[in-house]
Amino acid sequence: MTQADATRALAPAVILVRPQLAVNIGTTARAMANFGLSDLRLVAPREGWPPVEPHKGAAEAAASGAIGLLGTARVFDTTQAAIADLHRVYATTARERGQGKPIMTPSAAMSDDVSALAPDAKVGILFGPERTGLDNDDVVLADAVITFPVDQAYGSLNLAQAVLLVAYEWFKAARGDHAPFGPVEHSKPAVKNDVMSLFDFLEEELTKAGYFRPEEKMPIMRRNLRNILQRSVLSEQDVRTLRGVIVRLIEGPRLPGRRRELRRNLENRSPAGD
Amino acid sequence: MTQADATRALAPAVILVRPQLAVNIGTTARAMANFGLSDLRLVAPREGWPPVEPHKGAAEAAASGAIGLLGTARVFDTTQAAIADLHRVYATTARERGQGKPIMTPSAAMSDDVSALAPDAKVGILFGPERTGLDNDDVVLADAVITFPVDQAYGSLNLAQAVLLVAYEWFKAARGDHAPFGPVEHSKPAVKNDVMSLFDFLEEELTKAGYFRPEEKMPIMRRNLRNILQRSVLSEQDVRTLRGVIVRLIEGPRLPGRRRELRRNLENRSPAGD
Repeated sequence: MTQADATRALAPAVILVRPQLAVNIGTTARAMANFGLSDLRLVAPREGWPPVEPHKGAAEAAASGAIGLLGTARVFDTTQAAIADLHRVYATTARERGQGKPIMTPSAAMSDDVSALAPDAKVGILFGPERTGLDNDDVVLADAVITFPVDQAYGSLNLAQAVLLVAYEWFKAARGDHAPFGPVEHSKPAVKNDVMSLFDFLEEELTKAGYFRPEEKMPIMRRNLRNILQRSVLSEQDVRTLRGVIVRLIEGPRLPGRRRELRRNLENRSPAGD
Repeated sequence: MTQADATRALAPAVILVRPQLAVNIGTTARAMANFGLSDLRLVAPREGWPPVEPHKGAAEAAASGAIGLLGTARVFDTTQAAIADLHRVYATTARERGQGKPIMTPSAAMSDDVSALAPDAKVGILFGPERTGLDNDDVVLADAVITFPVDQAYGSLNLAQAVLLVAYEWFKAARGDHAPFGPVEHSKPAVKNDVMSLFDFLEEELTKAGYFRPEEKMPIMRRNLRNILQRSVLSEQDVRTLRGVIVRLIEGPRLPGRRRELRRNLENRSPAGD
Protein backbone atom coordinates (compact mmCIF):
# COMPACT_ATOMS: atom_id res chain seq x y z
CA MET A 1 0.00 0.00 0.00
CA THR A 2 1.34 3.38 -0.98
CA GLN A 3 0.07 6.60 0.54
CA ALA A 4 -2.01 7.26 -2.58
CA ASP A 5 -3.79 3.90 -2.29
CA ALA A 6 -4.81 4.68 1.24
CA THR A 7 -7.16 7.36 -0.02
CA ARG A 8 -9.00 5.03 -2.42
CA ALA A 9 -12.58 5.63 -1.46
CA LEU A 10 -14.65 3.67 -3.97
CA ALA A 11 -15.90 0.72 -1.99
CA PRO A 12 -16.61 -2.43 -4.04
CA ALA A 13 -20.10 -3.64 -4.91
CA VAL A 14 -21.17 -6.98 -3.42
CA ILE A 15 -23.17 -9.08 -5.88
CA LEU A 16 -25.01 -12.08 -4.47
CA VAL A 17 -25.84 -14.38 -7.37
CA ARG A 18 -29.04 -16.42 -6.82
CA PRO A 19 -28.79 -16.39 -3.01
CA GLN A 20 -31.05 -19.07 -1.55
CA LEU A 21 -31.92 -17.60 1.86
CA ALA A 22 -33.04 -14.06 2.61
CA VAL A 23 -31.53 -14.38 6.10
CA ASN A 24 -28.10 -14.63 4.48
CA ILE A 25 -28.78 -11.41 2.59
CA GLY A 26 -29.37 -9.79 5.99
CA THR A 27 -26.13 -11.17 7.44
CA THR A 28 -24.31 -10.01 4.31
CA ALA A 29 -25.68 -6.48 4.75
CA ARG A 30 -24.38 -6.38 8.31
CA ALA A 31 -20.92 -7.63 7.25
CA MET A 32 -20.80 -4.99 4.52
CA ALA A 33 -21.78 -2.17 6.89
CA ASN A 34 -19.07 -3.24 9.36
CA PHE A 35 -16.48 -2.38 6.72
CA GLY A 36 -18.02 0.60 4.99
CA LEU A 37 -19.54 -1.13 1.94
CA SER A 38 -23.03 -0.13 0.79
CA ASP A 39 -23.54 -1.24 -2.84
CA LEU A 40 -25.49 -4.50 -2.50
CA ARG A 41 -26.81 -6.18 -5.65
CA LEU A 42 -28.95 -9.29 -5.83
CA VAL A 43 -29.28 -11.52 -8.88
CA ALA A 44 -32.53 -13.51 -8.87
CA PRO A 45 -32.76 -14.19 -5.10
CA ARG A 46 -34.66 -17.44 -4.54
CA GLU A 47 -36.94 -16.07 -1.82
CA GLY A 48 -37.65 -12.93 -3.87
CA TRP A 49 -36.83 -9.34 -2.95
CA PRO A 50 -38.12 -7.81 -0.83
CA PRO A 51 -38.99 -11.24 0.59
CA VAL A 52 -42.30 -12.17 2.23
CA GLU A 53 -42.62 -13.14 5.89
CA PRO A 54 -41.12 -14.96 7.69
CA HIS A 55 -38.11 -14.44 5.39
CA LYS A 56 -38.39 -10.65 5.59
CA GLY A 57 -38.25 -10.62 9.39
CA ALA A 58 -35.32 -13.06 9.40
CA ALA A 59 -33.36 -10.91 6.95
CA GLU A 60 -34.03 -7.77 8.96
CA ALA A 61 -33.05 -9.39 12.26
CA ALA A 62 -29.83 -10.67 10.69
CA ALA A 63 -29.02 -7.25 9.22
CA SER A 64 -29.35 -5.73 12.69
CA GLY A 65 -28.30 -2.06 12.51
CA ALA A 66 -27.50 -2.40 8.79
CA ILE A 67 -31.16 -2.72 7.86
CA GLY A 68 -30.88 0.36 5.63
CA LEU A 69 -28.75 -1.61 3.19
CA LEU A 70 -31.64 -4.02 2.63
CA GLY A 71 -33.76 -1.12 1.40
CA THR A 72 -31.18 0.12 -1.09
CA ALA A 73 -30.23 -3.33 -2.46
CA ARG A 74 -30.86 -3.56 -6.20
CA VAL A 75 -32.29 -6.65 -7.87
CA PHE A 76 -31.22 -7.91 -11.32
CA ASP A 77 -32.42 -10.80 -13.48
CA THR A 78 -28.96 -11.76 -14.65
CA THR A 79 -25.36 -11.49 -13.51
CA GLN A 80 -24.55 -9.68 -16.77
CA ALA A 81 -27.04 -6.94 -15.92
CA ALA A 82 -25.72 -6.68 -12.35
CA ILE A 83 -22.12 -6.03 -13.44
CA ALA A 84 -22.82 -3.83 -16.48
CA ASP A 85 -21.48 -0.57 -14.96
CA LEU A 86 -18.45 -2.10 -13.21
CA HIS A 87 -14.84 -1.89 -14.39
CA ARG A 88 -13.32 -4.92 -12.70
CA VAL A 89 -15.10 -8.00 -11.41
CA TYR A 90 -13.88 -10.78 -9.14
CA ALA A 91 -15.54 -14.18 -8.76
CA THR A 92 -15.24 -15.93 -5.40
CA THR A 93 -14.84 -19.70 -5.70
CA ALA A 94 -13.79 -22.47 -3.34
CA ARG A 95 -12.49 -24.72 -6.11
CA GLU A 96 -10.34 -24.38 -9.20
CA ARG A 97 -12.66 -23.89 -12.19
CA GLY A 98 -10.20 -24.53 -15.00
CA GLN A 99 -10.78 -21.14 -16.59
CA GLY A 100 -7.16 -20.00 -16.53
CA LYS A 101 -7.95 -16.76 -14.66
CA PRO A 102 -5.60 -15.17 -12.13
CA ILE A 103 -6.34 -16.64 -8.67
CA MET A 104 -5.89 -14.37 -5.66
CA THR A 105 -6.45 -14.33 -1.91
CA PRO A 106 -8.80 -11.61 -0.58
CA SER A 107 -5.86 -9.55 0.69
CA ALA A 108 -3.94 -9.76 -2.60
CA ALA A 109 -7.05 -8.79 -4.57
CA MET A 110 -8.28 -6.00 -2.28
CA SER A 111 -4.86 -4.41 -1.67
CA ASP A 112 -2.46 -4.86 -4.60
CA ASP A 113 -4.87 -5.65 -7.41
CA VAL A 114 -7.53 -3.04 -6.61
CA SER A 115 -4.85 -0.44 -5.86
CA ALA A 116 -3.47 -0.87 -9.37
CA LEU A 117 -6.77 0.28 -10.91
CA ALA A 118 -7.68 3.84 -11.80
CA PRO A 119 -8.93 5.64 -8.65
CA ASP A 120 -12.47 5.93 -10.04
CA ALA A 121 -12.70 2.32 -11.25
CA LYS A 122 -15.76 0.55 -9.87
CA VAL A 123 -15.08 -2.90 -8.54
CA GLY A 124 -17.55 -5.74 -7.90
CA ILE A 125 -17.29 -9.12 -6.26
CA LEU A 126 -19.52 -12.05 -7.20
CA PHE A 127 -20.66 -14.54 -4.56
CA GLY A 128 -22.55 -17.67 -5.60
CA PRO A 129 -25.54 -19.51 -4.13
CA GLU A 130 -24.99 -21.05 -0.68
CA ARG A 131 -25.07 -24.69 -1.72
CA THR A 132 -23.33 -24.72 -5.07
CA GLY A 133 -21.26 -21.57 -5.48
CA LEU A 134 -21.04 -19.67 -8.76
CA ASP A 135 -21.83 -21.32 -12.08
CA ASN A 136 -18.99 -21.48 -14.57
CA ASP A 137 -21.06 -19.08 -16.70
CA ASP A 138 -20.83 -16.55 -13.85
CA VAL A 139 -17.11 -17.14 -13.30
CA VAL A 140 -16.38 -16.42 -16.97
CA LEU A 141 -17.72 -12.86 -16.45
CA ALA A 142 -14.98 -12.10 -13.93
CA ASP A 143 -11.49 -10.73 -14.52
CA ALA A 144 -9.97 -12.74 -11.69
CA VAL A 145 -10.88 -15.33 -9.07
CA ILE A 146 -10.74 -14.72 -5.31
CA THR A 147 -10.35 -17.75 -3.11
CA PHE A 148 -9.77 -18.02 0.62
CA PRO A 149 -6.77 -19.32 2.54
CA VAL A 150 -8.73 -21.93 4.52
CA ASP A 151 -7.98 -25.22 6.23
CA GLN A 152 -8.40 -27.79 3.49
CA ALA A 153 -9.93 -30.21 6.00
CA TYR A 154 -13.01 -27.95 6.20
CA GLY A 155 -12.95 -25.21 3.62
CA SER A 156 -16.64 -24.39 3.35
CA LEU A 157 -17.17 -20.73 4.31
CA ASN A 158 -20.74 -19.54 4.70
CA LEU A 159 -21.93 -16.82 2.35
CA ALA A 160 -21.85 -13.82 4.71
CA GLN A 161 -18.49 -14.90 6.11
CA ALA A 162 -16.97 -14.94 2.63
CA VAL A 163 -18.39 -11.42 2.12
CA LEU A 164 -17.02 -10.39 5.53
CA LEU A 165 -13.46 -11.45 4.72
CA VAL A 166 -13.37 -9.63 1.39
CA ALA A 167 -14.93 -6.49 2.92
CA TYR A 168 -12.48 -6.64 5.84
CA GLU A 169 -9.49 -6.90 3.52
CA TRP A 170 -10.79 -4.01 1.43
CA PHE A 171 -11.23 -1.88 4.55
CA LYS A 172 -7.73 -2.70 5.79
CA ALA A 173 -6.23 -1.81 2.40
CA ALA A 174 -8.28 1.36 1.88
CA ARG A 175 -8.44 2.73 5.41
CA GLY A 176 -5.51 1.05 7.11
CA ASP A 177 -5.26 -1.75 9.66
CA HIS A 178 -5.67 0.43 12.71
CA ALA A 179 -7.49 -0.20 15.97
CA PRO A 180 -10.33 2.35 16.09
CA PHE A 181 -9.20 3.46 19.54
CA GLY A 182 -6.01 3.43 21.59
CA PRO A 183 -5.54 2.95 25.32
CA VAL A 184 -6.81 5.89 27.35
CA GLU A 185 -4.05 7.18 29.58
CA HIS A 186 -5.53 7.73 33.01
CA SER A 187 -2.10 8.47 34.41
CA LYS A 188 1.12 9.59 32.75
CA PRO A 189 3.96 7.09 32.40
CA ALA A 190 6.22 7.28 35.44
CA VAL A 191 9.61 8.95 34.97
CA LYS A 192 12.57 6.69 35.63
CA ASN A 193 13.42 8.48 38.88
CA ASP A 194 10.06 7.45 40.37
CA VAL A 195 10.47 3.86 39.21
CA MET A 196 14.02 3.56 40.54
CA SER A 197 12.96 5.11 43.81
CA LEU A 198 10.24 2.46 44.16
CA PHE A 199 12.80 -0.29 43.46
CA ASP A 200 15.14 1.17 46.09
CA PHE A 201 12.36 1.30 48.66
CA LEU A 202 11.29 -2.29 47.97
CA GLU A 203 14.87 -3.60 48.11
CA GLU A 204 15.63 -1.74 51.32
CA GLU A 205 12.59 -3.27 52.99
CA LEU A 206 13.43 -6.72 51.60
CA THR A 207 16.99 -6.39 52.93
CA LYS A 208 15.62 -5.54 56.39
CA ALA A 209 13.30 -8.55 56.16
CA GLY A 210 16.18 -10.88 55.28
CA TYR A 211 14.91 -11.73 51.79
CA PHE A 212 18.25 -11.62 49.96
CA ARG A 213 19.82 -14.93 51.01
CA PRO A 214 22.49 -16.07 50.33
CA GLU A 215 24.04 -12.62 50.22
CA GLU A 216 26.18 -13.29 47.12
CA LYS A 217 22.98 -13.92 45.16
CA MET A 218 21.66 -10.45 45.98
CA PRO A 219 22.77 -8.77 42.71
CA ILE A 220 21.04 -11.36 40.52
CA MET A 221 17.92 -11.50 42.73
CA ARG A 222 17.73 -7.72 42.62
CA ARG A 223 18.13 -7.67 38.85
CA ASN A 224 15.38 -10.26 38.33
CA LEU A 225 13.00 -8.40 40.59
CA ARG A 226 13.62 -5.10 38.82
CA ASN A 227 13.09 -6.74 35.44
CA ILE A 228 9.74 -8.21 36.49
CA LEU A 229 8.43 -4.78 37.48
CA GLN A 230 10.16 -3.05 34.56
CA ARG A 231 8.12 -5.12 32.08
CA SER A 232 4.91 -3.64 33.48
CA VAL A 233 5.63 -0.18 32.01
CA LEU A 234 4.45 1.61 35.15
CA SER A 235 2.41 4.81 35.21
CA GLU A 236 2.72 7.45 37.93
CA GLN A 237 -0.42 5.99 39.54
CA ASP A 238 0.98 2.43 39.27
CA VAL A 239 4.10 3.51 41.22
CA ARG A 240 1.92 5.01 43.96
CA THR A 241 -0.24 1.86 44.01
CA LEU A 242 2.76 -0.45 44.38
CA ARG A 243 4.28 1.71 47.14
CA GLY A 244 0.97 1.44 48.99
CA VAL A 245 0.92 -2.35 48.48
CA ILE A 246 4.44 -2.75 49.86
CA VAL A 247 3.70 -0.57 52.90
CA ARG A 248 0.54 -2.54 53.65
CA LEU A 249 2.38 -5.88 53.38
CA ILE A 250 5.07 -4.71 55.81
CA GLU A 251 2.74 -3.03 58.27
CA GLY A 252 0.05 -5.62 58.39
CA PRO A 253 -3.15 -4.58 60.10
CA ARG A 254 -1.99 -4.25 63.70
CA LEU A 255 1.27 -2.33 64.20
CA PRO A 256 0.56 1.40 64.61
CA GLY A 257 4.09 2.13 65.92
CA ARG A 258 5.83 0.46 62.96
CA ARG A 259 3.35 2.21 60.71
CA ARG A 260 4.49 5.70 61.69
CA GLU A 261 8.14 4.71 61.25
CA LEU A 262 7.46 3.39 57.72
CA ARG A 263 5.45 6.43 56.77
CA ARG A 264 8.36 8.68 57.68
CA ASN A 265 10.73 6.46 55.70
CA LEU A 266 8.40 6.51 52.70
CA GLU A 267 8.05 10.29 52.77
CA ASN A 268 11.81 10.80 53.03
CA ARG A 269 12.38 8.61 49.99
CA SER A 270 9.74 10.15 47.72
CA PRO A 271 11.20 12.16 44.79
CA ALA A 272 9.80 15.42 46.18
CA GLY A 273 11.47 14.72 49.54
CA ASP A 274 14.90 13.79 48.09
CA MET B 1 6.44 -13.36 9.82
CA THR B 2 9.78 -15.09 9.79
CA GLN B 3 10.22 -18.61 8.43
CA ALA B 4 10.23 -19.98 11.98
CA ASP B 5 6.84 -18.42 12.74
CA ALA B 6 5.33 -20.12 9.75
CA THR B 7 5.66 -23.47 11.48
CA ARG B 8 3.83 -22.37 14.65
CA ALA B 9 1.21 -25.04 14.98
CA LEU B 10 -0.53 -24.40 18.30
CA ALA B 11 -3.88 -22.98 17.28
CA PRO B 12 -5.50 -20.63 19.81
CA ALA B 13 -8.43 -21.60 22.01
CA VAL B 14 -11.70 -19.71 21.44
CA ILE B 15 -13.49 -18.91 24.70
CA LEU B 16 -17.09 -17.74 24.43
CA VAL B 17 -18.00 -16.03 27.69
CA ARG B 18 -21.70 -16.32 28.58
CA PRO B 19 -22.87 -16.65 24.95
CA GLN B 20 -26.61 -15.98 24.75
CA LEU B 21 -27.60 -18.08 21.73
CA ALA B 22 -26.63 -21.69 21.00
CA VAL B 23 -26.98 -20.97 17.27
CA ASN B 24 -24.04 -18.56 17.57
CA ILE B 25 -21.98 -21.32 19.16
CA GLY B 26 -22.69 -23.37 16.02
CA THR B 27 -21.65 -20.55 13.69
CA THR B 28 -18.53 -20.03 15.79
CA ALA B 29 -17.63 -23.72 15.45
CA ARG B 30 -17.91 -23.46 11.67
CA ALA B 31 -15.74 -20.33 11.56
CA MET B 32 -13.12 -22.05 13.72
CA ALA B 33 -13.04 -25.16 11.55
CA ASN B 34 -12.57 -23.04 8.43
CA PHE B 35 -9.25 -21.90 9.83
CA GLY B 36 -8.01 -24.98 11.61
CA LEU B 37 -9.03 -24.11 15.19
CA SER B 38 -10.56 -26.81 17.37
CA ASP B 39 -10.28 -25.79 21.04
CA LEU B 40 -13.74 -24.34 21.83
CA ARG B 41 -14.53 -23.39 25.44
CA LEU B 42 -17.84 -22.11 26.75
CA VAL B 43 -18.28 -20.15 29.96
CA ALA B 44 -21.82 -20.46 31.37
CA PRO B 45 -23.71 -20.48 28.04
CA ARG B 46 -27.21 -19.07 28.62
CA GLU B 47 -29.05 -21.81 26.73
CA GLY B 48 -26.98 -24.51 28.48
CA TRP B 49 -24.64 -27.03 26.91
CA PRO B 50 -25.45 -29.24 25.23
CA PRO B 51 -28.61 -27.17 24.66
CA VAL B 52 -32.11 -28.58 24.43
CA GLU B 53 -34.25 -28.44 21.29
CA PRO B 54 -34.86 -26.29 19.31
CA HIS B 55 -31.54 -24.68 20.28
CA LYS B 56 -29.61 -27.90 19.72
CA GLY B 57 -30.85 -28.29 16.17
CA ALA B 58 -30.16 -24.64 15.41
CA ALA B 59 -26.58 -24.91 16.70
CA GLU B 60 -25.96 -28.07 14.70
CA ALA B 61 -27.39 -26.60 11.51
CA ALA B 62 -25.22 -23.50 11.95
CA ALA B 63 -22.11 -25.59 12.61
CA SER B 64 -22.70 -27.41 9.32
CA GLY B 65 -19.74 -29.74 8.66
CA ALA B 66 -18.02 -28.55 11.86
CA ILE B 67 -20.54 -30.33 14.07
CA GLY B 68 -17.73 -32.39 15.65
CA LEU B 69 -16.45 -29.25 17.39
CA LEU B 70 -19.76 -28.93 19.25
CA GLY B 71 -19.19 -32.35 20.79
CA THR B 72 -15.68 -31.53 22.00
CA ALA B 73 -16.52 -28.06 23.35
CA ARG B 74 -15.75 -27.77 27.07
CA VAL B 75 -17.99 -25.92 29.50
CA PHE B 76 -16.72 -23.90 32.46
CA ASP B 77 -18.48 -22.02 35.26
CA THR B 78 -16.10 -19.07 35.22
CA THR B 79 -13.73 -17.33 32.84
CA GLN B 80 -10.91 -17.94 35.32
CA ALA B 81 -11.44 -21.69 35.09
CA ALA B 82 -11.62 -21.55 31.29
CA ILE B 83 -8.22 -19.86 30.92
CA ALA B 84 -6.35 -21.67 33.71
CA ASP B 85 -4.04 -23.68 31.41
CA LEU B 86 -3.33 -20.89 28.89
CA HIS B 87 -0.16 -18.80 28.67
CA ARG B 88 -1.44 -15.69 26.94
CA VAL B 89 -4.99 -14.41 26.76
CA TYR B 90 -6.56 -11.73 24.57
CA ALA B 91 -9.88 -10.01 25.24
CA THR B 92 -11.89 -8.83 22.23
CA THR B 93 -13.69 -5.53 22.83
CA ALA B 94 -15.40 -2.97 20.61
CA ARG B 95 -14.74 -0.07 22.99
CA GLU B 96 -11.86 1.26 25.03
CA ARG B 97 -12.17 -0.14 28.58
CA GLY B 98 -9.73 2.14 30.36
CA GLN B 99 -7.61 -0.72 31.63
CA GLY B 100 -4.35 0.45 30.12
CA LYS B 101 -3.73 -2.82 28.28
CA PRO B 102 -1.99 -3.01 24.91
CA ILE B 103 -4.62 -2.67 22.14
CA MET B 104 -4.07 -4.58 18.90
CA THR B 105 -5.80 -5.39 15.65
CA PRO B 106 -6.41 -9.09 14.93
CA SER B 107 -3.54 -9.19 12.44
CA ALA B 108 -1.07 -7.51 14.82
CA ALA B 109 -2.07 -9.87 17.63
CA MET B 110 -2.14 -13.08 15.62
CA SER B 111 1.03 -12.44 13.63
CA ASP B 112 3.59 -10.34 15.54
CA ASP B 113 2.39 -10.79 19.10
CA VAL B 114 1.67 -14.52 18.99
CA SER B 115 4.89 -15.12 17.01
CA ALA B 116 6.90 -13.56 19.81
CA LEU B 117 5.72 -16.24 22.28
CA ALA B 118 7.45 -19.53 22.95
CA PRO B 119 6.43 -22.06 20.28
CA ASP B 120 4.53 -24.22 22.78
CA ALA B 121 2.70 -21.32 24.46
CA LYS B 122 -1.06 -21.85 24.52
CA VAL B 123 -3.06 -18.82 23.47
CA GLY B 124 -6.73 -18.08 24.12
CA ILE B 125 -9.10 -15.39 22.93
CA LEU B 126 -12.08 -14.23 24.98
CA PHE B 127 -15.32 -13.22 23.24
CA GLY B 128 -18.15 -11.67 25.26
CA PRO B 129 -21.94 -12.11 25.22
CA GLU B 130 -23.67 -10.97 22.02
CA ARG B 131 -25.46 -7.97 23.45
CA THR B 132 -23.00 -6.53 25.94
CA GLY B 133 -19.53 -7.81 25.17
CA LEU B 134 -17.08 -8.81 27.90
CA ASP B 135 -17.42 -7.54 31.46
CA ASN B 136 -14.53 -5.48 32.77
CA ASP B 137 -13.86 -8.36 35.17
CA ASP B 138 -13.26 -10.59 32.15
CA VAL B 139 -11.10 -8.02 30.38
CA VAL B 140 -8.82 -7.74 33.39
CA LEU B 141 -7.91 -11.42 32.96
CA ALA B 142 -6.38 -10.74 29.56
CA ASP B 143 -2.83 -9.73 28.67
CA ALA B 144 -3.93 -7.57 25.76
CA VAL B 145 -7.04 -6.32 23.98
CA ILE B 146 -7.93 -7.18 20.38
CA THR B 147 -10.21 -4.79 18.57
CA PHE B 148 -11.29 -4.68 14.94
CA PRO B 149 -10.56 -2.11 12.25
CA VAL B 150 -14.22 -1.40 11.45
CA ASP B 151 -16.22 1.45 10.00
CA GLN B 152 -17.02 3.62 12.99
CA ALA B 153 -20.46 4.37 11.52
CA TYR B 154 -21.46 0.74 12.18
CA GLY B 155 -18.88 -1.14 14.18
CA SER B 156 -21.00 -3.90 15.67
CA LEU B 157 -19.59 -7.27 14.54
CA ASN B 158 -21.64 -10.35 15.32
CA LEU B 159 -20.05 -12.94 17.59
CA ALA B 160 -19.11 -15.58 15.02
CA GLN B 161 -17.81 -12.94 12.64
CA ALA B 162 -15.45 -11.60 15.31
CA VAL B 163 -14.26 -15.18 15.86
CA LEU B 164 -13.90 -15.62 12.10
CA LEU B 165 -11.63 -12.59 11.69
CA VAL B 166 -9.29 -13.60 14.52
CA ALA B 167 -9.15 -17.21 13.27
CA TYR B 168 -8.52 -16.01 9.71
CA GLU B 169 -5.63 -13.78 10.81
CA TRP B 170 -4.15 -16.62 12.87
CA PHE B 171 -4.35 -18.96 9.88
CA LYS B 172 -2.73 -16.40 7.56
CA ALA B 173 0.10 -15.82 10.05
CA ALA B 174 0.64 -19.49 10.88
CA ARG B 175 0.06 -21.13 7.51
CA GLY B 176 0.59 -18.27 5.09
CA ASP B 177 -1.77 -16.20 2.98
CA HIS B 178 -1.88 -18.57 0.04
CA ALA B 179 -4.76 -19.51 -2.24
CA PRO B 180 -5.39 -23.22 -1.61
CA PHE B 181 -5.14 -23.89 -5.34
CA GLY B 182 -3.58 -22.30 -8.39
CA PRO B 183 -4.84 -22.13 -11.95
CA VAL B 184 -4.78 -25.50 -13.69
CA GLU B 185 -2.81 -25.21 -16.91
CA HIS B 186 -4.80 -26.95 -19.59
CA SER B 187 -2.38 -25.76 -22.24
CA LYS B 188 1.23 -24.59 -21.99
CA PRO B 189 1.98 -20.89 -22.44
CA ALA B 190 2.64 -20.13 -26.10
CA VAL B 191 6.27 -19.46 -27.09
CA LYS B 192 6.86 -15.99 -28.52
CA ASN B 193 7.38 -17.40 -32.03
CA ASP B 194 3.77 -18.70 -32.08
CA VAL B 195 2.40 -15.43 -30.75
CA MET B 196 4.34 -13.29 -33.25
CA SER B 197 3.30 -15.59 -36.06
CA LEU B 198 -0.35 -15.06 -35.08
CA PHE B 199 0.16 -11.28 -35.07
CA ASP B 200 1.80 -11.44 -38.52
CA PHE B 201 -1.08 -13.49 -39.91
CA LEU B 202 -3.71 -11.13 -38.47
CA GLU B 203 -1.92 -8.02 -39.76
CA GLU B 204 -1.42 -9.49 -43.22
CA GLU B 205 -5.13 -10.25 -43.49
CA LEU B 206 -6.04 -6.81 -42.13
CA THR B 207 -3.71 -5.19 -44.69
CA LYS B 208 -5.44 -7.13 -47.50
CA ALA B 209 -8.81 -6.01 -46.11
CA GLY B 210 -7.72 -2.35 -46.08
CA TYR B 211 -7.94 -1.95 -42.28
CA PHE B 212 -4.77 0.13 -41.82
CA ARG B 213 -5.92 3.59 -42.99
CA PRO B 214 -4.37 6.13 -43.17
CA GLU B 215 -1.21 4.24 -44.05
CA GLU B 216 1.08 6.39 -41.89
CA LYS B 217 -0.95 5.33 -38.83
CA MET B 218 -0.19 1.66 -39.51
CA PRO B 219 2.76 1.40 -37.08
CA ILE B 220 0.78 2.76 -34.15
CA MET B 221 -2.37 0.79 -35.05
CA ARG B 222 -0.27 -2.37 -35.28
CA ARG B 223 1.40 -1.69 -31.95
CA ASN B 224 -1.91 -1.09 -30.17
CA LEU B 225 -3.40 -4.27 -31.58
CA ARG B 226 -0.38 -6.34 -30.55
CA ASN B 227 -0.51 -4.87 -27.04
CA ILE B 228 -4.20 -5.74 -26.63
CA LEU B 229 -3.51 -9.39 -27.42
CA GLN B 230 -0.20 -9.41 -25.56
CA ARG B 231 -1.99 -8.60 -22.31
CA SER B 232 -3.97 -11.82 -22.59
CA VAL B 233 -0.90 -14.00 -21.89
CA LEU B 234 -1.84 -16.54 -24.56
CA SER B 235 -1.48 -20.30 -24.20
CA GLU B 236 -0.69 -22.61 -27.14
CA GLN B 237 -4.40 -23.44 -27.32
CA ASP B 238 -5.36 -19.75 -27.18
CA VAL B 239 -3.17 -19.06 -30.25
CA ARG B 240 -4.85 -21.90 -32.17
CA THR B 241 -8.28 -20.62 -31.06
CA LEU B 242 -7.57 -17.08 -32.25
CA ARG B 243 -6.21 -18.30 -35.61
CA GLY B 244 -9.45 -20.25 -36.09
CA VAL B 245 -11.51 -17.17 -35.17
CA ILE B 246 -9.65 -14.98 -37.70
CA VAL B 247 -9.99 -17.56 -40.46
CA ARG B 248 -13.72 -17.92 -39.79
CA LEU B 249 -14.24 -14.13 -39.84
CA ILE B 250 -12.46 -13.81 -43.20
CA GLU B 251 -14.06 -16.83 -44.83
CA GLY B 252 -17.59 -16.36 -43.64
CA PRO B 253 -19.92 -19.27 -44.21
CA ARG B 254 -20.18 -19.39 -48.02
CA LEU B 255 -16.86 -19.08 -49.84
CA PRO B 256 -15.30 -22.50 -50.40
CA GLY B 257 -12.76 -21.20 -52.97
CA ARG B 258 -11.45 -18.47 -50.70
CA ARG B 259 -11.41 -21.01 -47.89
CA ARG B 260 -8.90 -23.24 -49.66
CA GLU B 261 -6.69 -20.27 -50.46
CA LEU B 262 -6.68 -19.16 -46.80
CA ARG B 263 -6.03 -22.65 -45.54
CA ARG B 264 -2.92 -22.81 -47.73
CA ASN B 265 -1.84 -19.40 -46.48
CA LEU B 266 -2.42 -20.44 -42.87
CA GLU B 267 -0.45 -23.66 -43.29
CA ASN B 268 2.46 -21.87 -44.95
CA ARG B 269 2.66 -19.41 -42.08
CA SER B 270 2.48 -21.91 -39.24
CA PRO B 271 5.75 -22.33 -37.34
CA ALA B 272 6.14 -25.91 -38.54
CA GLY B 273 5.73 -24.81 -42.17
CA ASP B 274 8.15 -21.85 -41.98
